[in-house]
Amino acid sequence: MGRITTRRPVTRVSLTHGERRRPDTLAVEEPLEIRIAGEPLAITMRTPGHDVELAAGFLVSEGVVRTGADFRSAIHCGGPGTNGLGMPEVGAPEGADAAPRGVLDTLRAPDGGASASENTYNVLDVALAHGVALPSTDLSRNFYTTSSCGMCGKASIDAVRTESAHDVAGDAFTIDARLLAEFPDTLRDNQDAFDKTGGLHAAGLFDAATGELLVLREDVGRHNAVDKVVGWAVLNNRLPLRGTVLMVSGRASFELVQKALMAGIPMLSAVSAPSSLAVELADEVGLTLVGFLRGDTMNIYTGHDRILVPQPAEV
Amino acid sequence: MGRITTRRPVTRVSLTHGERRRPDTLAVEEPLEIRIAGEPLAITMRTPGHDVELAAGFLVSEGVVRTGADFRSAIHCGGPGTNGLGMPEVGAPEGADAAPRGVLDTLRAPDGGASASENTYNVLDVALAHGVALPSTDLSRNFYTTSSCGMCGKASIDAVRTESAHDVAGDAFTIDARLLAEFPDTLRDNQDAFDKTGGLHAAGLFDAATGELLVLREDVGRHNAVDKVVGWAVLNNRLPLRGTVLMVSGRASFELVQKALMAGIPMLSAVSAPSSLAVELADEVGLTLVGFLRGDTMNIYTGHDRILVPQPAEV
Repeated sequence: MGRITTRRPVTRVSLTHGERRRPDTLAVEEPLEIRIAGEPLAITMRTPGHDVELAAGFLVSEGVVRTGADFRSAIHCGGPGTNGLGMPEVGAPEGADAAPRGVLDTLRAPDGGASASENTYNVLDVALAHGVALPSTDLSRNFYTTSSCGMCGKASIDAVRTESAHDVAGDAFTIDARLLAEFPDTLRDNQDAFDKTGGLHAAGLFDAATGELLVLREDVGRHNAVDKVVGWAVLNNRLPLRGTVLMVSGRASFELVQKALMAGIPMLSAVSAPSSLAVELADEVGLTLVGFLRGDTMNIYTGHDRILVPQPAEV
Repeated sequence: MGRITTRRPVTRVSLTHGERRRPDTLAVEEPLEIRIAGEPLAITMRTPGHDVELAAGFLVSEGVVRTGADFRSAIHCGGPGTNGLGMPEVGAPEGADAAPRGVLDTLRAPDGGASASENTYNVLDVALAHGVALPSTDLSRNFYTTSSCGMCGKASIDAVRTESAHDVAGDAFTIDARLLAEFPDTLRDNQDAFDKTGGLHAAGLFDAATGELLVLREDVGRHNAVDKVVGWAVLNNRLPLRGTVLMVSGRASFELVQKALMAGIPMLSAVSAPSSLAVELADEVGLTLVGFLRGDTMNIYTGHDRILVPQPAEV
């Protein structure tokens, strides 16, 4: 990892032209843990690169710092001198991608730091200038924590696997790609508020056997729309949601795959792109992940065996 | 508030047909504080409605609960018996929108609760069944906390106003709508990774006087892309970002307006829709908010006086 994009094989399906295997480019998603003076402050799923900027901007947004002089240093935990992304960040020549010297003038490997080959560059330790008040430490953006320098997507996946009580890999069924291709229109047709505002994410739960829309929820936050669907299910004592497909109106992130897994949903389909870590988690746990489900085409990233693709002659 | 959508006047601008004032429908965004046994657990910006489901699904995702039997009750703080949205949630007849009796069988107004007219229905207290372990209390989704029952968007706005050191209202300048209309294409043309993945949000900072793109950042998370832009600015000692426009590839939420304000950015433009609370915050602090900036059209929600709209004859 450590790049902004990554390549991965995907099965591109067209209902009229059949399927073919080809490489696909994914946006990389990896956790970043921001520490202040060694203490974990926040963890966010982000695309690697410009991590010092990300931490600095986050601290501005939270009202912790106001000028460049409020920063003393920013060090990737175990980092040997760059952020490992081939991008200058701290102590590099000035430029659009670099923090100028004098603002952040320290980047060094801590004593006993991991070797470059082990470092994931996903932990960034920020030292604030003398007199800048430390923020309270309950700013966690989400819920994965680690004490090691080697924080990585794999650790996030392992944390989720440990939490989940459901075996989605063992939920064997098949669904015709033609039925799956109808879900986006069904979702859209049942979205009361979207047509009025253009501003709401939707999540719908479908019965994979019949194609019935079981429940649909909308929200300004995509994770909220999914939480409402899962909440509907747990309050109706329907967990785990075996034999169902969760369809979302936007992109598929690690967090959405996690939510599907925690509810025992074996298939997630999205109108837009998945992230790299969403695909990795789905692959690890045996969850079928479909992206770019639009018109009569879709990309199958993982769990192809649950989807029956018609031969071109059949259509 | 308290509905899924709300109406608000907006100026619809067409570079070829001029401008006209008309009502626009916005997705409602309001904070929800989820409490467990009276203790604040998490706060999320959400669209009101199905709040019990939202809390229940959130707790499933976090591994706190696994079945409906893990819940004992869910009570809107000060709530008189419904969630105030005209939607049945708890104790109502079973149905797709209702939690069945027996799973959540209690909904009552606490002693001394606020009257219905004062209640914002933005605080939900969940009681878990005996033996269900309480989660650790550092799950805060974001950073606004309150001890009152009357948590509302206005309180969130006031909290942000208190934090901000910058007077964006006093940053007087004008920008030609034709220049503004070029920003989405400039953003897209400079997005290295998007064309490959379709999966990255972009945020770009423009000089309002010249139209120059000062910095562009991409990320799987929209708030991260904006944090990186603001971080670039603070590390280069450029805060407050007077006379600039922040352009984002997606929607404009409360959080993005907050980030703009904290960086002293006086104008935010988005390719897609803003939420209700984004518009309210922008209006309160004198920040210009533009949405649906596509082709030669845009919606001006607040701060119209910074945008010069050409007369149709001029174009």
